Order: sequence, then C-alpha cells, then structure tokens
Amino acid sequence: MDFSSILSSIYLQMQPLLGQGKTANYIPALRDVDPLQFGMAVTLNNGNFFGIGDYQQGFSIQSISKVFTFTLALRLFEAEIYQRVWREPSGDPFNSLVLLEHEQGIPRNPFINAGAIVVCDSLISHFSKKHHRIADTDDGSKSTAFYEMMQFIQNCTSDASIGFDRQVFESEMKHGFGNLALANLMKSFGNLENDVAAVLKTYFQQCSVVMNVKQLSRSMLYLANNGTDPITGQQFISKQHTKRINSLMLTCGHYDASGDFAFSVGLPGKSGVGGGIVAVVPNKLAVAVYSPALNKNGNSLVGTKALELFSEYTGFSIF
Amino acid sequence: MDFSSILSSIYLQMQPLLGQGKTANYIPALRDVDPLQFGMAVTLNNGNFFGIGDYQQGFSIQSISKVFTFTLALRLFEAEIYQRVWREPSGDPFNSLVLLEHEQGIPRNPFINAGAIVVCDSLISHFSKKHHRIADTDDGSKSTAFYEMMQFIQNCTSDASIGFDRQVFESEMKHGFGNLALANLMKSFGNLENDVAAVLKTYFQQCSVVMNVKQLSRSMLYLANNGTDPITGQQFISKQHTKRINSLMLTCGHYDASGDFAFSVGLPGKSGVGGGIVAVVPNKLAVAVYSPALNKNGNSLVGTKALELFSEYTGFSIF
Amino acid sequence: MDFSSILSSIYLQMQPLLGQGKTANYIPALRDVDPLQFGMAVTLNNGNFFGIGDYQQGFSIQSISKVFTFTLALRLFEAEIYQRVWREPSGDPFNSLVLLEHEQGIPRNPFINAGAIVVCDSLISHFSKKHHRIADTDDGSKSTAFYEMMQFIQNCTSDASIGFDRQVFESEMKHGFGNLALANLMKSFGNLENDVAAVLKTYFQQCSVVMNVKQLSRSMLYLANNGTDPITGQQFISKQHTKRINSLMLTCGHYDASGDFAFSVGLPGKSGVGGGIVAVVPNKLAVAVYSPALNKNGNSLVGTKALELFSEYTGFSIF
Amino acid sequence: MDFSSILSSIYLQMQPLLGQGKTANYIPALRDVDPLQFGMAVTLNNGNFFGIGDYQQGFSIQSISKVFTFTLALRLFEAEIYQRVWREPSGDPFNSLVLLEHEQGIPRNPFINAGAIVVCDSLISHFSKKHHRIADTDDGSKSTAFYEMMQFIQNCTSDASIGFDRQVFESEMKHGFGNLALANLMKSFGNLENDVAAVLKTYFQQCSVVMNVKQLSRSMLYLANNGTDPITGQQFISKQHTKRINSLMLTCGHYDASGDFAFSVGLPGKSGVGGGIVAVVPNKLAVAVYSPALNKNGNSLVGTKALELFSEYTGFSIF
Repeated sequence: MDFSSILSSIYLQMQPLLGQGKTANYIPALRDVDPLQFGMAVTLNNGNFFGIGDYQQGFSIQSISKVFTFTLALRLFEAEIYQRVWREPSGDPFNSLVLLEHEQGIPRNPFINAGAIVVCDSLISHFSKKHHRIADTDDGSKSTAFYEMMQFIQNCTSDASIGFDRQVFESEMKHGFGNLALANLMKSFGNLENDVAAVLKTYFQQCSVVMNVKQLSRSMLYLANNGTDPITGQQFISKQHTKRINSLMLTCGHYDASGDFAFSVGLPGKSGVGGGIVAVVPNKLAVAVYSPALNKNGNSLVGTKALELFSEYTGFSIF
Repeated sequence: MDFSSILSSIYLQMQPLLGQGKTANYIPALRDVDPLQFGMAVTLNNGNFFGIGDYQQGFSIQSISKVFTFTLALRLFEAEIYQRVWREPSGDPFNSLVLLEHEQGIPRNPFINAGAIVVCDSLISHFSKKHHRIADTDDGSKSTAFYEMMQFIQNCTSDASIGFDRQVFESEMKHGFGNLALANLMKSFGNLENDVAAVLKTYFQQCSVVMNVKQLSRSMLYLANNGTDPITGQQFISKQHTKRINSLMLTCGHYDASGDFAFSVGLPGKSGVGGGIVAVVPNKLAVAVYSPALNKNGNSLVGTKALELFSEYTGFSIF
Repeated sequence: MDFSSILSSIYLQMQPLLGQGKTANYIPALRDVDPLQFGMAVTLNNGNFFGIGDYQQGFSIQSISKVFTFTLALRLFEAEIYQRVWREPSGDPFNSLVLLEHEQGIPRNPFINAGAIVVCDSLISHFSKKHHRIADTDDGSKSTAFYEMMQFIQNCTSDASIGFDRQVFESEMKHGFGNLALANLMKSFGNLENDVAAVLKTYFQQCSVVMNVKQLSRSMLYLANNGTDPITGQQFISKQHTKRINSLMLTCGHYDASGDFAFSVGLPGKSGVGGGIVAVVPNKLAVAVYSPALNKNGNSLVGTKALELFSEYTGFSIF
Repeated sequence: MDFSSILSSIYLQMQPLLGQGKTANYIPALRDVDPLQFGMAVTLNNGNFFGIGDYQQGFSIQSISKVFTFTLALRLFEAEIYQRVWREPSGDPFNSLVLLEHEQGIPRNPFINAGAIVVCDSLISHFSKKHHRIADTDDGSKSTAFYEMMQFIQNCTSDASIGFDRQVFESEMKHGFGNLALANLMKSFGNLENDVAAVLKTYFQQCSVVMNVKQLSRSMLYLANNGTDPITGQQFISKQHTKRINSLMLTCGHYDASGDFAFSVGLPGKSGVGGGIVAVVPNKLAVAVYSPALNKNGNSLVGTKALELFSEYTGFSIF
C-alpha cells in the first residue's frame, strides 16, 4: 500500500478545513498554540514510517496519556483496578460529575477524566509501596509514579528524549478546578487513596507529556501487535489485555463522540484536547494525527476527518 | 478450525451455569419459558453450519430485530435517519427516558428502544408512501411495514418459514407501558410521524419475530461479508454501511453492558431479552446463542459466557 | 382596607406590561386567546367582592384544578394518597419525566402533572367503587369521577353554572403526548390503577374547567378559612388539611418558580397555563388574576407581577 | 398560652423516640456526641423565655449558620447576591452536584451547601474590600469575614460569649471532600471569587459556631419581628428582606424534606446536621430544638417531631 500517496492526498484535502474549530480554551498554554498546524504519521509493524506536515511538531498528548497509564495498571494489578473503575461508555462529556455522583464515586471507564485520576491514584499507591517511600513525595528522585510513567512511555516509543511541558503542567495546576471537583468527589466516596493534591499533580504531569505524531504512532505499535513491540520484541502486556485496551479505546476513546468515531473511522483510537489522536490497525500499524483546533466534542476537528479519509483510502477498519 | 469440538466444549462448560439468572419478567409469554434451555449455532461464510443443544428451538428475537430494521433504514434513507437518531452509546438502561428528555426526543442510537421505535416509524412512513396507502392501516394486505420487515428477515435467512409469535405480540401490546411512555415523549417532541399506537403495533410485531439460533446465525452472514450474503450472492447493503452497523453493534448492542461485551468478547453483537445473542466475525462467520435466563443488564447470562469462551477458543476478536 | 383603590392602582401599572410574554403554545385553543386580557378579583371572607378589568372573562383553569382534586382526595382517602404521591418540591419543570423515572413512578407532589394524574386516577377508582360502576365508563350518567369533581368545584364556588370548555378538552386530548408519556411511565411502575386513556380523559376534562377570576377567588375561600366556606358555613375539609394544602401551594404551586413566588409574593397560590393564578391570605381573603401571556416558567407574567404588587400594597404575606 | 406546660408535654412524649435515628457520621466530632440529648427553647418577642431538657447544652449549629450569613449578604449587597445564587427549592440532597453542573455553577438557593459557600465567598470579598486587606488572610486580626460573621451572630443573640468549636472545625477541614468538590466545581464555572481553600476555611468556621437552643431561639427573634430585634430595638434588616428569608426557610430550609416540614410543621425553619432546628412564628416568637440523632434526610429526628407537636399544641402555623 502506498502510504506516502495516501498521506499526501489526505494532507491536501485537509487544507481547506484548517481554521475551523477552536483550540482548547481552558488554559492559555493550549489556547494559544497555532490552530493551523496539521501533522500525520503512520508507523508500520515492520518499522516503516511515513509522515507528512507538522509530523515533528511536539504537542501535549493530554488524554492520550490515559492509554499508557491504564496499560500500566492492567499489567501491574488488573483485578484491583476493576474494583475501582468500570469499562462502560459514559454517554456524558469527559468531565461530567453526574454519573460519578449517582454511581458512588466509581467512574464509568478509565478514559474519562475521573477514571484516569483513579488509575493515576492506584499507580501512585503501587509505586510508593514498591519503592518503600512516602506516597506522592516529589523529591526529584527516580521513584515517583510519574517517573515510572515516563519510563514506560519512553520504552513504548524507544525514545528516551520524551519529556513533559512544564508550562502546560503549571497552567493545568492553576486552572484545574473541574478535575479538583472530580477528585474531591471521588475522595468523598472513598475511591481515592492518596492526597487529592498529590494525585492531581501526577495526573497533570502525565497530561503534559509532549510527543509528536511520529513518536505517538511509534509508541502505540504494541497495541497493533498483541502487546509486544514488533520492532524491539519487548512484550509490554498480554494479548488478552491488548484486546481489552483496544476495545476500550473503541467504545470510550473519544468522550461522547466515541460512537461516532467507531461509526465513521472504525478503528480503536484515543484523542486528547491538545489536538492529537492516535488509532491502531490491529496486526498492521498505528497512525497519529495532530491538529489543535477542536470540534464541539473536544476532539481534533481536522484530525478526525483525516482519520476518516485514512480508513476510507486504506480500507482498514476492524468491522 | 474444529467448530464441532469447540461448541461441544462450550456446551459442557455451560451446564453448571444453567439455572442462574432470570427470564424477562415483564410479560408472561417471556417469563414462563423454560430457563434451562441452551442452544448455540455457527454459520460460516462458506455455508457450513455447526449447532449444539437447543439450536432448533425457536424464540422471540426481541431487540435483535433492531439490526434488521436499522439495516433497512440505512439502505432506504440513510441521510434522513441520521436526522432522527444518533449513534452514541447511551450509558443508560435500554428503556431510559432521562437522556431522551434532555436531548429533545432524539434517541442516542437505533439499538435502544426509543431509537428502534423511531426507525420503525420511519419505515412505516416510507412504505406507506411507496405503496400509496394510508400509514399504519393493518388490512392484512402485503403492503404494511411489518410485511416488508418480514420479507427482509426471510430474505436474509433464505427461509420463508419465519413468522412471529402472536401471543408474545399481544402480551407486549398489553403491557408495553414503558414503550408507550417513550413513544409519546418522542411524539411530544415531534420525532414520531405516525400514530403512536400504529408505530408500537408494528414495533411489537417486529420484536415478536421467532427464530432459532441456526436461522439467526444464517441471517446475519451479510454482516460478516461486507453486506452481501456469501451464499446467495445477494447484496443487502454496501460495505460502508456494513461497517457502520457492526460498529454500532459493538458500541451499543448490549444496552449498558455494551462496553463489557466489547471488553470480554470483542465482537460486534446484538442481544434481546428473549435470551438470544448474535455476534459477527467479519469475513468469517456469524454465531448465535440462546438461553433465556438473563443477567442484571438484561442480556442472556449463559449466552454471554458462551460467547466469551467462543472468542477465547477461536481467538476471534476484532481487536 | 380600600381594595377598590388597590386594584385600580395595580390595573394601571399592569397596562405597560400587557403584550409581554406568550400564551401557552402547545394547543391552539390556548395559544389563540387574546394575550392582552387582564382581570383581577378579590373575595373577602365576609363575602365582599372587588373586581377589575376582565374579571368576568372565563378561561381554562388548567393546573389550578389540581387544588380541587387534591382537596377531594385528602378528604376522601388521605392515608392512601400519601402512598402514591409525595409532597416535596421537584426542582424540575412541571412535565419532567426524569425524577419520575428515578423515583419509581412516585411523583414528587400532587401539583406537578404526574402527581395530579395520580390523584385523578385515585378519584376515578374511589368513585367507581362508590357508585358500583365500571371505572372510567363515560356513559353521560351523573356518577363519573369528573361529574363529582364538577359538583365539588360548583359547591366551592356556590355556582352551578360552572362548566368546561369542550374545545380545549378535545385539543388537549389530541396533543397530550407529554402527559401520555408521564401516565404510561407511571403505569409501567404500577402507580396507575385505571386505563391510561380513561385517566387522561378525566384529567383533561378537569383541566378544561372554565372559571373567571370572580368565581375563582370565591371558590378558594375555604382555604382562607380553615376548610370551611365562610359564607355558606359548609365545611369542605379539616383545619389540618387546609394548612397542608396551603403549604403545598406555597412550596409547589408554581412549578420550578415556586420558590420565587414565595419569595416575592409570600402567599400560598396556584397557577395554570391558561393564565390564571389564585392566592390565599389565611383568615382574610382569596385573590385571583387572569392574563394569558406566560413567563418562561409557564406562569402568567402579568398575573405574577400583579400579585407581587397586591402583597406589597396590602402588606399581606404569611411571613 | 402556657408554654411551660406545652414544652413539658412535648418533652415527655419525645422520651420514647430518643435513641432512634443516627448522629451525623461524616466527622467524628459530630458522630460521637450523645444521641440521647434533647433540649427545646422558646423565646417570645416580649423577651419571655421557656426552656426544657438540655436547653443549655451547646452544639454545632452547622447549616443554621446559613441564615445568618444570608441575612448579612442581603443587607450588604442584595442585588449582587441574586446574580450568584437562586432562590428555588432544589429537590435534591443538600450536597448534590448534579443540578449545579446542569446550571453552570449557579446554586439553587443559599441554604444548600453550594449556595452557602457562594454567600460565604461574597462576604469574604466584601469585607476584604471594606477593610483594605488581602482577602482570606487569617492573621488573627479583627477584620476577617468570619470575625464579622461572629460579630453579627453575637449581636443577634445579644451574647458576646458565642464562639466556635475548633475541633469540629478542624474535623470538617480534614474530611470536607464533598464541599471541596462543590466549591471547585463552582470555581470552574467562575462563580467563586476567592481561593477555594480560603472560602472553605471560613465556611467550615461558620458551620462550627456553637450555640444552645436558648441562644438560638433568642438569636432569630429579628425574623419574628420584621427584621428588628424586639428586645433591643436594633434593626438588622428590612421588613421586606425578613419576609424573603422566612419564605426561603420555608421552601428550602430542610434540604429535600423542606416540603414535608412545611406540610407537617407549617413554620419557616432551618435545620443543621448538628441536630439543631430553629423555627419562627412571625410576630410572636422563635423556637429551637436540639437532638443530635438525624432522620434519613439529615434533619434532627426528635427535633422535627417536637416541632410538629409544638405547631399542633399552639395552633401556630403560617397557613
């Protein structure tokens, strides 16, 4: 398949759409990025790479980080995590408190904010026990939960240069009232083990991780290869877990537009308000797009369209 | 793949579970069926068939009928139907009025009751226009919407003997207050074109269609073969539409347990409160199970377990 | 107190407001009345009457009828009715299904539609038993529930000429989908004893009763006099029940603007979408207003303002 | 009227009920108080006082403090406060986030937690401006919002000895996750001007104020006398504002049991989870009860019953 031509064709067709949609407006660091950027990248299981546009432009992966942390949680303590977060679509926006209140502080799935915060909390508990350290103390040492998350993301990408954007992180810390509401509500129901402030600090760090679409498509190859990195041969999770993460991305990966994404793209994927979306074609490849202007559901407007075309041109779909 | 052995093994493992769960209790005709029944059937795209247990036992397909009617609507007036029903998971039980009220009478998807009632209404309008007849008049002639639905189901199954259970139908008519509430609510928002009574009559007829798992697995082969019946060669819908129906079954096919089904089975499927579930392995086969005792989400308890094992033993999953 | 001057002053001040707001638009018979009408009437416990403007203009009392039917139910079977309807403000619009679904078909209070439908149903059951007749058969005889309701309303008003508007009634019957949804939902929860159609017929009849503000203020004097008509001396209900009805009018009499009415008028009252509002000054008088253009909460816009002024000028308030 | 006999009679009849209900369990300082306590006090507008049982036992007034702070806000900046909090019953429990989310961070009324937090925030802003000081700095000086609140409460009671319970305050600070969720949610909607932590500190201080029923009944006399303390002659608020506070207590003073309290007691009142309830008979008296075991709605179980009897024996009711 001629991926170069396909990407070129998509790139051209996206040009008239650039300028539509709006960047995330809740923090200046996201609001003020150039909304006209567009990059797209494909990494095949055999290692071949194809990129176009701003494919080397780093951006804040935001909610896409939830895939990495849920992978870690599944690997380390699957049974436990199922006690604290469900795996059903929520039918509500990503930050809704309504269902959370009705359902006694148990989030619908790990890909809405509340669920990801619970996953983050469980990882903090796990690593603080493992390293015999006080939970949440950020002493710069290499034993924090966030350090472990970064290690894992770098491993998945085979790229130790990946870091996080301190400005985005601090901006999130300063304006994260909605997430503070979610976290405190769960704490009031007993579904948060560590201090709310410590959990949110780690959570905002993970959201501030910076990648470009080249790295992002590379990092998700394990989900296109039954849990094992097809290039390094390193197994991150089991085949069974891989299926579960992919199914969760399909049913819950795009907030209350998940059904629409499944309907029109037909691939497991995850989006972030930074403007990135990554999708997986099982046994074949991972594809990532970046364009920071969002549609009304909070997903990259151009990114969504680009993936629809990608699915149409390649015929790739899990259905 | 040795499907006979696989079905035999599943059959044995299901025996201890028979007796768990409860039959649907809202109408006597469903409540009083023998809860210990279990049948399972696989039909391959090449026509080979494998069945076990009560695979020849007819049962009321109930919500599984929604797949057939949505297929018809997509084929006949795709653009129109998207105006009247969304394609997002609802996160609520199958009969919830809450979202319907918040969202001005537009159902979340065609596989919850409200959505299927809208699809039914749209088919009544369509066929009454086509046949130049008064909508909803059930004069026994061959031009009603339900007659067309039956024709389509018989076509998909290559079996003209399929009919519906009058006792179940009359029981639904007598006790269908929840659906009357949904239909009247949509009527009050202007999202129902025909008389509420006429629409529900047709809707309850479609729910009362009787099939066995052999017929059911046969009837869904077109969804395992890009819209074309692999045996007769007849094309029912386009490849694109097939993907959309499959994605909708995955995200919305099992009410508020859809995420769980995707997570544990990993195949597009649709369940009914009569105890049937059908699932599709794209490009390969369709599989159907029947066991009338339901779990707390209203899906066949043993049927769900049997499909989990089927996915595990065959390795079939779309993820 | 010089009620004539007070009414004159209010009348003048209301003139500039006529034309604001909108008549109820869900049925033509209400939508098409002249929106510029305004009438106001005060009847004192001593029988003195003061009226101004269109005080002899009949209008559909709509939800105000709920006060009469709840009075009847309290008198006839208090204990029973408390099993089937609560007495809490709902915080939701008058026709909401949300709380009704969450709360298993038990309406919040008898002054929202769902609650009034339950009261109507209970009266139908009561009178059909009493008269040894088949419930809901409308054979024109003098033994239907609606006949008893009319008798009671005429008694309260000492006026046998009060009737109902057949055109409004038929219009309600034709367009009452929202109420059909409510009634069917309650039926599905087992909180409706009679046929949905029969209950709604009686309910729409009660809503179509026609009174003018003179009659309306006269009819509610029993609530300003501890349950006994101060003019005829006839006791309709006990002192205790009177307090309960008055408290219910204060907390729930104006849908989701009840708090605002208590806040700004400070009197127990009940409004209807026909444009009428009646309020009670315990131990003194009843006052009624009519102006068919409604504010956004579905209460008479000018009527609400007029009662605010009345409370201000007279100093009457229960607080 | 022989209030001594009435209180004695109520006291006797309450004895068998002591032991029912449960103390508030969310903080140890409230949970561990003796549940068998019962005190009741009446203070007449002429200054006469009647007390029985544990009428000198101090307790945490909790939500009753909301009456004082809303009085202050009405007096100081009425127009402003109406922009930030409504005056409608919520129909939901005192700490619900659901309506708050649907309604963009504007609480339903000032007597649910969210509303009282907004009032607290507005007072902090007001006093920090007035005193030319940094908002929320708790430097022990006499210019904090809480200092002003205490002054006001002491003024209303004519008792400078009233203080607050540091242990309860610290316990609330430590366990106040639900209120942190509410406050952060409002902050995310822009309806909180000061730092969340500072607002909640002041809010928890006001909730921890300690009074006995003698003081409590004394402190609310201004609401029984059109805004003016009948003993000292000091005017706290206007007659108009008094009516509004009383109407708000009636419609919203007891969370989602407000309708029931109006129905069975028929007096404006306010309860707190510490076990206190205060009610007002306009132009006559204020009455307070204390018994820390709560019913399922979070109101004093014995206190509610005692006030029902008080209303019955005295015949006092606003209806």
